[in-house]
This record gives sequence, structure tokens and C-alpha cells, in this order.
Amino acid sequence: MTTAPPDAPDVVRSAYAQLAVTDLDRSRWFWVDMLGLHVQYEDEDTLYLRGTDELTHHSLVLRRGDTAGLDHIAYRVRTPQDVDRAEAFFTALGRPVRRVPAGAGVRGIGDAVRVVDPLGFPVEFFHHTERAARLIQRYDLRRGAEVARLDHFNLCTPDIPAAYRHYRSLGFGCSETIEGEGRELYAAWMYRKQTVHDVAFTGGAGPRLHHLGVATHESHQVLRTADLFGALRKEHHIERGPGRHGVSNAFYLYLRDPDGHRVEIYTSDYYTGDPDHETHRWSVRDDRRRDFWGNAVIESWYKEASPVLDLDGRPQPLSESLLDESAVRVGADGLG
Amino acid sequence: MTTAPPDAPDVVRSAYAQLAVTDLDRSRWFWVDMLGLHVQYEDEDTLYLRGTDELTHHSLVLRRGDTAGLDHIAYRVRTPQDVDRAEAFFTALGRPVRRVPAGAGVRGIGDAVRVVDPLGFPVEFFHHTERAARLIQRYDLRRGAEVARLDHFNLCTPDIPAAYRHYRSLGFGCSETIEGEGRELYAAWMYRKQTVHDVAFTGGAGPRLHHLGVATHESHQVLRTADLFGALRKEHHIERGPGRHGVSNAFYLYLRDPDGHRVEIYTSDYYTGDPDHETHRWSVRDDRRRDFWGNAVIESWYKEASPVLDLDGRPQPLSESLLDESAVRVGADGLG
Amino acid sequence: MTTAPPDAPDVVRSAYAQLAVTDLDRSRWFWVDMLGLHVQYEDEDTLYLRGTDELTHHSLVLRRGDTAGLDHIAYRVRTPQDVDRAEAFFTALGRPVRRVPAGAGVRGIGDAVRVVDPLGFPVEFFHHTERAARLIQRYDLRRGAEVARLDHFNLCTPDIPAAYRHYRSLGFGCSETIEGEGRELYAAWMYRKQTVHDVAFTGGAGPRLHHLGVATHESHQVLRTADLFGALRKEHHIERGPGRHGVSNAFYLYLRDPDGHRVEIYTSDYYTGDPDHETHRWSVRDDRRRDFWGNAVIESWYKEASPVLDLDGRPQPLSESLLDESAVRVGADGLG
Amino acid sequence: MTTAPPDAPDVVRSAYAQLAVTDLDRSRWFWVDMLGLHVQYEDEDTLYLRGTDELTHHSLVLRRGDTAGLDHIAYRVRTPQDVDRAEAFFTALGRPVRRVPAGAGVRGIGDAVRVVDPLGFPVEFFHHTERAARLIQRYDLRRGAEVARLDHFNLCTPDIPAAYRHYRSLGFGCSETIEGEGRELYAAWMYRKQTVHDVAFTGGAGPRLHHLGVATHESHQVLRTADLFGALRKEHHIERGPGRHGVSNAFYLYLRDPDGHRVEIYTSDYYTGDPDHETHRWSVRDDRRRDFWGNAVIESWYKEASPVLDLDGRPQPLSESLLDESAVRVGADGLG
Repeated sequence: MTTAPPDAPDVVRSAYAQLAVTDLDRSRWFWVDMLGLHVQYEDEDTLYLRGTDELTHHSLVLRRGDTAGLDHIAYRVRTPQDVDRAEAFFTALGRPVRRVPAGAGVRGIGDAVRVVDPLGFPVEFFHHTERAARLIQRYDLRRGAEVARLDHFNLCTPDIPAAYRHYRSLGFGCSETIEGEGRELYAAWMYRKQTVHDVAFTGGAGPRLHHLGVATHESHQVLRTADLFGALRKEHHIERGPGRHGVSNAFYLYLRDPDGHRVEIYTSDYYTGDPDHETHRWSVRDDRRRDFWGNAVIESWYKEASPVLDLDGRPQPLSESLLDESAVRVGADGLG
Repeated sequence: MTTAPPDAPDVVRSAYAQLAVTDLDRSRWFWVDMLGLHVQYEDEDTLYLRGTDELTHHSLVLRRGDTAGLDHIAYRVRTPQDVDRAEAFFTALGRPVRRVPAGAGVRGIGDAVRVVDPLGFPVEFFHHTERAARLIQRYDLRRGAEVARLDHFNLCTPDIPAAYRHYRSLGFGCSETIEGEGRELYAAWMYRKQTVHDVAFTGGAGPRLHHLGVATHESHQVLRTADLFGALRKEHHIERGPGRHGVSNAFYLYLRDPDGHRVEIYTSDYYTGDPDHETHRWSVRDDRRRDFWGNAVIESWYKEASPVLDLDGRPQPLSESLLDESAVRVGADGLG
Repeated sequence: MTTAPPDAPDVVRSAYAQLAVTDLDRSRWFWVDMLGLHVQYEDEDTLYLRGTDELTHHSLVLRRGDTAGLDHIAYRVRTPQDVDRAEAFFTALGRPVRRVPAGAGVRGIGDAVRVVDPLGFPVEFFHHTERAARLIQRYDLRRGAEVARLDHFNLCTPDIPAAYRHYRSLGFGCSETIEGEGRELYAAWMYRKQTVHDVAFTGGAGPRLHHLGVATHESHQVLRTADLFGALRKEHHIERGPGRHGVSNAFYLYLRDPDGHRVEIYTSDYYTGDPDHETHRWSVRDDRRRDFWGNAVIESWYKEASPVLDLDGRPQPLSESLLDESAVRVGADGLG
Repeated sequence: MTTAPPDAPDVVRSAYAQLAVTDLDRSRWFWVDMLGLHVQYEDEDTLYLRGTDELTHHSLVLRRGDTAGLDHIAYRVRTPQDVDRAEAFFTALGRPVRRVPAGAGVRGIGDAVRVVDPLGFPVEFFHHTERAARLIQRYDLRRGAEVARLDHFNLCTPDIPAAYRHYRSLGFGCSETIEGEGRELYAAWMYRKQTVHDVAFTGGAGPRLHHLGVATHESHQVLRTADLFGALRKEHHIERGPGRHGVSNAFYLYLRDPDGHRVEIYTSDYYTGDPDHETHRWSVRDDRRRDFWGNAVIESWYKEASPVLDLDGRPQPLSESLLDESAVRVGADGLG
């Protein structure tokens, strides 16, 4: 279902992520020149980027920092009152909560609240954001991967069932899971907007950011992206793929940015907006869940992820994964 | 905006259309063999069809009839109570309203209400529908156009502003319009699901069905469709395109079925789910609105449409268009 | 067949065309920025361009001139001796022949001979040409249409059978024709390299250049080209298509450059290299010959063409078409 | 160069391969249903198959046999006299030579000569072959991978320089190589038709058939092929890819048929028809040669290959590779 519980903020979609990067010029090369994100605004220490189909101020903020990491992920909520609702919701959970008035926070974003959620992730909720000029038909401005929009966040967390329960309490639907014989949950894909996901969980030490997913319109744009990295002898930025996911059925390519932040170029998933949309359950023993074509997963893909910073920019401590994973050989679900 | 007014039924999406066709075998060739719709159920007089990504019983019903026409279009609503809400809503408008209990109506559809809306179109509202087996990854079952899902209805109606007001009162958002210098409305694209539209209005004598829009994942599937008709020397079924729409930016191909019912194969539009999604307004004098590449529109495309039947299967009387159209040379917006 | 007669020069392929253009900056925008041709060399009055897959100095030369026109088309021959053979061949035909020693002619081209052939076209034959850096895998340098190589010349000439006989005498094979009931020839596609054509003839007043054909690897690059022109509100450069040719089966888009020179973006034809490759004959009454999808041809497409200059840069006089064309409604074969 | 030496047969192209398979029904599923080859003729023990663009009788023959293997590869020659020339050429080399009159050999093939070449491969040379109906525009008959034509043979042989010299003596050009610091040859791609290759050599024990390469028109057909195998849970037939080759720049997918015979679905290489076409040399230390995107090569890909039968259908003895390969870590060039 995709109706928010009365006490929870009504989340519209995954809206943006802010990453700390150590070399803004190299990051600009990767995200702007190669992936084709549009520079909405920049200053000496920050880049505000968006996809060609996005109509709001940014979907990715790159902040110059001494250590690379995730500053926060952000969800847009339906009304200004949902920002208050978010504040009350996480306060009631006893989590760190900080109000960020318009002007005090991220450029282009209005009144917001930031929390450290029960999974240990710094999350911002906001409603107001600046509109941006419509570039949807500006084919002349397209570059590189021609990224159209942010699609989802993928988070490493040790306790997948806890992550699932938390996001259910925020009214997220669940499109797909990977499960063991005993229905134990290995991974979950959850959504508010009408796609396969806004957020997904990959089992492992957490909190860490596994990747940001960005969408293109067609698969040839994904192939073109890989060709561009090869042409410049930068193929080492390609970590995995291109391939077809079993989960979501989307066509994918995983890249690592100059700081090792992982991004998925992702295209062609499916509509999930019906009120009774059912969860599609994959067995952890179906090799196609990781790659529909049966290709093996690169080890780094499920071992490495980005550190997560707290509300004061300090690295969050990690917890190890709870599940005993040694009983099953797995892959794209992130269990090693 | 996409929040339903309190007194209106909460429409989820455009769900299915039922067409009367005069030769079920020839229709089956067109819709199943050529467009690749999946036969969910069939009997001597009826075909129940769906796209490869659809998880409910059908998105198109073809009924054998003496005269070709549109029986009704149908919207899925969020809850069973929304069916009652629809009944009250149209009763309050003084429109013909008929309750159709589960089993008494269309196979696979539960309790429903059928109305003749203020525009003269027969419209069904339902919540319950049978689930259907998941074919999303059954590439082996794909044929022809490989249609993934129904996308929208396009309706011919003489009074576009009235159509716009009516659908606004049902909580539909408006993604794009075509307007004259004085902001007079020539065409509008309106949505509940998070795409460019569930329904659009084409100015002209009405009520008539201009076309059904069905979605594919990528543009090469649209080209393949045209190639298939050419290969069989059935190219006369191709009426217009392939081309790029200015409005919606989608890549399109218009075909006519054996009874002349028009279908648009449509791919790659954009996300409209944000609460403050703005309407994009095209000038009726921008030649790109009709075709982004400036190709002229075939006259039949904006002159011809399917008759609409009333709740008892009788042809609805037509009203001519109100706007004086001779003042402006127009095309894809349907004004001649 | 593709073996050259003993007295004829052994033509390898259509190699380049030199066009006179009136505004080099606007031509540069069209051919370099929009079509993505690579600038191999330029000076104040000339641009030397090639496709990303081409390994020789140029396939298109744009010369600044007072009047727009075709300076000459050029064929590469297999050996230096074939240049002498070309000189003798056209001298024996009593045609104007001019030897152009290396350095005296076009930059990057060695010893050559220029003739006015029996159809009235200025044609150069050369063997030596400068090699150019390999860009085949420089995806980072691709722009716009991402043109890979020159594919063919299309020539307007009033006497198609005479054109056919002349090119047969040069050892060209014939892949396809358009013919009337009495086998009268309306159009012909002829080749030396192993594609559908190096040269084709379009009936009409001549000598005129109907178009240059350039190849891309895939159809999405053709669609992208049209989108780019639409995005810049330059859609008036799009004359016809995108569409599928009946003849050649290639996917096409016709554009007009700032001087009205026509170019076809063309992809996906077929292998013709077998010694007994048969001519595929289309009836002038098969509507699919002009467009496999049955779309009508724009009148300008078969009425307008570029003037041809003689060896001294003076416009060649025109002869009208011989065939009585009024008896048949035709299109892509160029008969009006 | 692509001119045949006077004493050598003038080879036009790689024409067909005949494979022994142990279960004709399972092979038919793989090659016809999944890859989309057209059945030109079949009897109880044999399938004669061709691609949709091929105009001759077959490009693949599947023969029922007790042990799987390669019966022979076949090259078409330009004239009937070239068959005699082939007989003389290999007789002079002291190789086993057998004349196969029309009717005594493979259905659809005329007078031929079969030899065991200096590399130990059974090779047929023929000129006459039956024409087949043109299916180029029969989009309605396309299935699965929609294979258009045979592209090349890839052969495992221990002595790459010897293989190179032999094919040079047959007038083959060399488009690309993989070489060590000392110019020692690790792999070579050689052609007669105007593509990157008709034959390539992969270092390793030989004679063995590494794979048959078949061509499709566009990359989405390659992706579709992988999706089809995944959909049927037959993903184990996918051995490697999809990916981009550094060598040839083509987009590829490697599959194994039910007997383990390897086939490459291959698209988008480049023109090599110019008389002075230069060899492009890759360093064995450039990781992109094996995969332009830097993806690792599956070990089975360069360890496993099909046995080769002699002119009497007996397995040919193997010779191990000569080069000491331990000095270099390599992959797609086939050295382990």
C-alpha cells in the first residue's frame, strides 16, 4: 500500500542525497561530464546537480570535505505540515532530531527537519524546494549518461527486518524481497512513488550507503555510459554490469565515483501504484535474483560501501550484520 | 495536484477500456498477434487482454458487436468506498448512474458503478479486480509491439474547458495544455498516476474516443511495430508516426485497428508525482506541439474518432465543437 | 557483380563529396555540431570533415562559395594505375577530363583525375589519400548524430537507364531498382563496396545532387538527431522521416543543411558482396518502396536538389526528365 | 589488402559451418527458437539454417552425430575456377584434399573441395550454392536473437603466427591483432569481406573451434537474447557478456549451445574494404582488448572449445599451445 499512516509524514519520493567528496573537480568530471547531470548552482565548495527531467532545484549535492561520506539522504513530503509530522514522529522514537529552518540548511530547500533514523542514517524531510527550468526537451544539453532523474537510495544495514518495519511505519510499500526458506528477509525494495523503489536495503555492516540509483530513459544510454568510460581508459570506474536485474527487471550499470561512492545507472522498471500491489518474493537460492542472466556479482559490490556521517558530520559507528550468512551462497542481495 | 477532493472518488489510474468490434478474429490478429497483448481470458464473444507488465485481469476488453464503438472507459479507485463515492458524485451531478454489482458486470471486475459523465462518456469506476499472473519477466511471451501496459485515454469533446473543469473536480492534475493567445484552452493532458496523463482531450465533435494509449519500454519496440505492419503489407493500419510528441515528449506511433479504433503506441514520458507539479503550457502556434520534429499531422488523425455508446449500448448523439477553429491552423491538438 | 571491367578503373567506394556553401559558420554548426562530423582540418575557406569510423583524411569538404552547389563527388580506386585507367576511360568517352596532380587538388588527396561524366556530373577518381587518426572507439568525441561514415551519393538525372548503363560499365553492381510494368527503370541503387549502394539515381531534371547519405550504427542515433533539431527549434531542417525505406530496408532521416543541401542519416542496410548478388526489383506501384510504413513522401523531397558545378565552378545546364511521369503516382523514386 | 594471390583461391567470405550435435531437437530449440535462425530445409538427421539477411541456402548445418564437434567450416570463392585453385593450392601444400562433386556433398552446395588445412582444420571451398527466398524485410518471421547472418569463425590454434601466415597466403587482410612487447602475436582477426573478420585465431590447444560469430543489426537484439534465456531459466547457456569488445569494437554476447558449441551474438563492427586498411595492434597488457569496459573474462571462455573432426569424421588430435603463456596475465585473446 502507499497510504501514509496518520502519525507519519506523507513521503512523496526520494528527493536528493548530499555526499561529501574530497576533490570537487574530479567529482565534477564524473557526475557532470560523464553522467550528464546538470549543474543547477555551484560555489567554491558545493555543486548542486539534477537530472534532465527533474523540475526541482537538485537531486544531488556534492560538498567538498576532508573525508568522503554520506551527509544525508532526503525525502520530499506532501505538505509543510508533514515536516512537523516528521519531527514529532522521530522525536517520539527517541531519535536525534534537528529542525533546519529555510535558509539555514541546503540551498534551494525550505524548512526541513533532519533526524538520525533508527537504522542510523541521517535523513532530511522537507516540502518546499525551488523550482528549476524545464530541461526535459533540451536534447542539446544532454551529455554522457543523460541521467533523467534520481531513482532511489540503496542502504547497507545489518538488520533487514528492522529496516523493513521502520519504512513500513513510514507508509512505504514493498515491491520485491529476497527471502530464505524460512521467509527470513535478506533484502527489500520499498517505494512511495509509483516505481519499484525509493529505497532498498542491502544486508551488511551499517549504516553505510551502498549506492545512489539514477534513471535513464533507455538501455542504449546505459551502454553509451560504459563506452565513454572505456574510451577515456577510465574503465576502472565500472564496477559491475551492464546487466539485467532479476529484482526490478531493470537494466543496470554500477560505477564508482572518484571517492568510491557507488552509483547505479538504471532503466526500465515497472508501475507499482495500485493500492493492492503485491510484493514479489525471490528465493535467495534463485541465481537470477542477482543478475537475470546468471552473471556472477563482483565481490567489491557487496563488500564495499560509503561511510555515513551523523548530523554533525562525524562518521557514524558501524554495526555488523546480524544474520548468520554463512549458510547460503548469495550475491546481489549483498550477503557475502 | 493529485489529492482527490473529499466528495470525489479517489481515482488511482486509467484501468481499462471496453470496445465493441465487428470481427473478433481480425481484432485478435491486430491486438494480440501484432500489438502483443496477452489473452487473459476469452470466450466466443469477448477477449480480455492485458500488457506484459500489468498485474490485474485486463486493460482492454474486446466485445463482439454489430457496430464498432466504445462501450466504456474505466478507472480504478483506491478503496471500495470510493465506488460509493463515485455513485454519489455523479448522482449529485444529475447524470445517469447505474450500479453494477460484482458478477453482473465485466469479468474480473468487482462491484462497480457506471455513469454517463458530463462530457457524455460512459465511465466505470471500480476497486476490486482479479489479480493476474506476473509476466513482467516472461520475455519468451513477448510478441509484436510488446505492449507493457495501458497508459491513457484520449477523448474527443467539443468543450475543452468543461472537460478540464470536470476532471479537476475529480482531483486530476494537469501536466500540459495547448492554449491560444488569450489562454483559451485547445487541449489538456490530465493525470492521477504519476505519468503525463491518464486522460487527454482533443477538441472536436464529441463524445468520441480519439484513441487508447498503450506503453512500451523503449523506442525500438515502436519502430519494430511499424516494421511488422510493413512486412505483412498491412501498412495502411499505420496512420501517423513514428514521431516525437512535443506535448509529453513521448515517442509515438498511431495505428488504426480493423474497425478503425485508433491506438497510440507510446513510450518514454516523465514523472509528474510531485504535489506542486506545474502545468506546461504550449502555444497553439508552436508547430512542435503536434510533432517535435515539425512533421505535419495527417488530416484523418484529427477528423476521425470512434463513436461512443451509452449505458444501453446505443450510440451517443454528437455535439459539434464550440470554439471557432477557423482562426488558427492547428494539428495534433485536434483542431482542424 | 563487383569485378571491374578490364578497361575501367577499379572503384573501391564512394569516398567524398565537395560542396560549395555560402556561410561556412552556419555549415559548421550543421555538419559538425549537429551531425557530429569530425573536423580533420580547416582553414579560412574550407572545412575537411570525416565520420568517426573513417580512417582517411575526409569524406566531406565544405568550400566557401558565392553560390551553393556540388563541386564534385569522388571515388577511391584500388591502385595508382586505376587513376590512369580512369583518365583513359573518360577520354575515350569524349568527356571533359582534367588531371589533378598531388598538391594541386584537394588537401589530403593524392594524384587524381577529374571528369564530367556522361550524366553531367563532376567526378574525381583518386587512390592516394592521407591516413587519419583512428577515432572508432573515441566515444568521448561523439556528438549529435554520431555519423560513422559516408555511405552513398544520390544523383538526380533525367535518363535513369543511361545512368544505369554508365555505372555498369564502371563495374558497379545493382542491388535494387524501381521499375514499371514494362520493366522501365524509375530508379536504381548501385554499389562497389559491400553495402546496398555507393550511388543511386533519382529521376528528374539533372544533373543535380539529390543527397549525400551518411551512416550511423543504430536507429536511436537517428532519432536523437531529430530530437536535437527539435530541441533547438531548428526542426525546419528536418525534411522527411524518420522512416524505414522499402528499398534498402534502411532506417532514414532526411535533413536540409543551411544552403538546402540534402543529407540522409541512414542506418542498417545489408551485405551485397557475393559475386552473384541478385537485383531486388520493386514495382513503382508498391507504396512501400518509398516508405515501408506507407507514409507519404514530402513533395520537396522529389522536386528539390542541389545544382552541380562544372570543372571550372560554373553551374551545369539542366536537362529535363525524359520519362512521361504523369502516368504514375510515385514518390521516393523521385518521379513527381 | 584484400586481393587474392594469383595461385590462391579468391575467397569471398566465411560462408557456413557444419556442426555435429547429439540431440537435434535440443539444438533446434537453441538455434531456431532462441537465436531465430530460419530453417531453410530439414530432414530426420540434419537442419539447414540461415540468418534473416542471408540470400544463400544456409550458413549453418546441424548434423545428428554420436559425438559433438565441428565437421568443417566453409568459404565461398568468387568463381568455379577458384574451387580448382583451392584444390591445387592445398595439394601443393601436401595437405589432405578431397573433391566433393555437386550432389555428393552438402545439400544446397555445388562442386566443392574439402581439405585439412595446415592448422588441422577441415575446410570446404565452394562457389555454387542455391539461392534462397529474400527474408530481409520479413519482420514477421523474426524470432529470438533475430540473427541476420553468419559473421565469422573463431579458431583455437597453438601457433598463431603460423595461422596468420597461412591466411595471409590466402589473401586475407588483418584488421586487428593482440601483441606482446616483442611484437609476438597472441591473436589475430582476418578478413576477406569488408568487415573486421571472417576468421580469428585464439591461442590454445588446437585445432578446436572456439566459436561461430553471428551478426544482429542492433545492440537491443543482443540484450533481448540474454533476457530470453533468463526468462526461461536457461541463463546457464549465457557464458559471457553482454559486453563491448576492445578488439573490433563490436557489442557481444557468448552463449553455449546444448552440446557446448559456443556462439557469439555480435553487432556493430566497421568497414575494412580500403586497399591499404591498416592493422590495429593491441598490447596484450591493455585490459580493454578483452572487454572495453574492463570486465574480467570467464575462465571457461578461453579454456573450452569444440573438438574438430577430420574428413572422415574422426576427432583430430590436439597440439598444445607453443607460446609460454605464464609470463602474461591475459584473457579475451584466449591465453590463460
